[in-house]
Amino acid sequence: MDDLNHIDQEIQKLMWQMRTETLSKMKQPFNVDEKSGRKDLVTTVDKSNEKTIVTKLRELDPDAQILGEEGFGDQIDKATGRIWLIDPIDGTMNFVMQQNNFAIMISLYENGVGVLGYIMDVMNQKLYHGGPNGVFVNDEPLIAPANLHLRDALVGISGPLLINDDHNMQTIARQSRGPRMYGSAGIEFAKVLTGELIGYISYLRPWDFAAGKILAEALNLRVKTIDGGSLSMLSSNVVLVATERASEEIIGLAN
Amino acid sequence: MDDLNHIDQEIQKLMWQMRTETLSKMKQPFNVDEKSGRKDLVTTVDKSNEKTIVTKLRELDPDAQILGEEGFGDQIDKATGRIWLIDPIDGTMNFVMQQNNFAIMISLYENGVGVLGYIMDVMNQKLYHGGPNGVFVNDEPLIAPANLHLRDALVGISGPLLINDDHNMQTIARQSRGPRMYGSAGIEFAKVLTGELIGYISYLRPWDFAAGKILAEALNLRVKTIDGGSLSMLSSNVVLVATERASEEIIGLAN
Repeated sequence: MDDLNHIDQEIQKLMWQMRTETLSKMKQPFNVDEKSGRKDLVTTVDKSNEKTIVTKLRELDPDAQILGEEGFGDQIDKATGRIWLIDPIDGTMNFVMQQNNFAIMISLYENGVGVLGYIMDVMNQKLYHGGPNGVFVNDEPLIAPANLHLRDALVGISGPLLINDDHNMQTIARQSRGPRMYGSAGIEFAKVLTGELIGYISYLRPWDFAAGKILAEALNLRVKTIDGGSLSMLSSNVVLVATERASEEIIGLAN
Repeated sequence: MDDLNHIDQEIQKLMWQMRTETLSKMKQPFNVDEKSGRKDLVTTVDKSNEKTIVTKLRELDPDAQILGEEGFGDQIDKATGRIWLIDPIDGTMNFVMQQNNFAIMISLYENGVGVLGYIMDVMNQKLYHGGPNGVFVNDEPLIAPANLHLRDALVGISGPLLINDDHNMQTIARQSRGPRMYGSAGIEFAKVLTGELIGYISYLRPWDFAAGKILAEALNLRVKTIDGGSLSMLSSNVVLVATERASEEIIGLAN
């Protein structure tokens, strides 16, 4: 592997290239299929994006393993060594229905520890990127959001959790200044990074939270399971990202 | 009053001027007060925006009445004659907490009939405007969104309605492809105009829905009370804007 700084520069370039390619694919017809049901979609853009990213990662970092949402990477059962995670279109429902509010995400973990994370908000032309040493939006450094209480801010909660009142989400929403629901983990993680949301709670797969977790933790935000446990990068969970104060308060209310 | 085309051009200019002023006021400290409680805010920007708009409207259309959210217009109890409605910052909570996802709205009704509507999405630099003869985003004409069914699209529902399951909102959300929640009537009306949402349901005051109603109806969308009644421009109600098909389906499920 080349040194980390070179890898980082190459992945940033790749993210912008993927943005351009995605915008161009959106201008042509593409196919939409259902995965587990009518609320879980995949498109030919998801698949072709993942193939392009996997090819580039194999070239840049041939010894690493790759976990991609659409299955063009490797079968991985242990979080050892270097692992790249890919979400080629996060928020596919929004991509199909809104042509807005979706993201492309890539991240690198080494022996389970986050190294580099990337969230591309395609329509807003913003790349959130960095690692433990700093987080940026495009070229601007991001500062850690204020450590607010739940009662003083807005909180992102996924539709199913709020509707079903899982983990007392309705109580949590009422105690905040209001719930918000955008339908893309990447977009909602980005809003927590910038302080637009004090936190975000959703059932997530590894590729949904892997990039956001690295960036959030670098900004002193807490990323946990909803019962306060630590999050394994290879398992799916109800994930909570929030300020330190709101994280404690939400975990208290949820359990 | 000058002719309608002149008035329209002047209000478009005013909306862009208000956008510039609002962005400039956001760079300076401003005061935030609670109105009915901690979830209902008003800022000095809401108030100064409304004063500027009222002054301009008095000059342009001196015989009309004005209904402004912050009370700098007139006391109005009958929908007769020419009435301007103003929401100087719609989504004040988002304005304060996110510096994003808020709107400025103005509309003109004559004897209860919509004439001109304006929604400025400040951060996205988009002015939705027009009347019965056509709707535009900036200079681009908007075409009517496809008449989709609820089950085939995303629906915007306000937090309180969804959490409290008022009017069976949880069932409505489940039947759709997913609920979304942005916290600004102007922003959500705009998403229905462009087809990003198939509909939007929230308890709204006259200045929250007045502009959106004019633009939506010009695009063959239905704007009703949640029990299917027609909407008086001077009363507050649970308001539903949606495609014709989704409107019938939602009203059926809600009652």
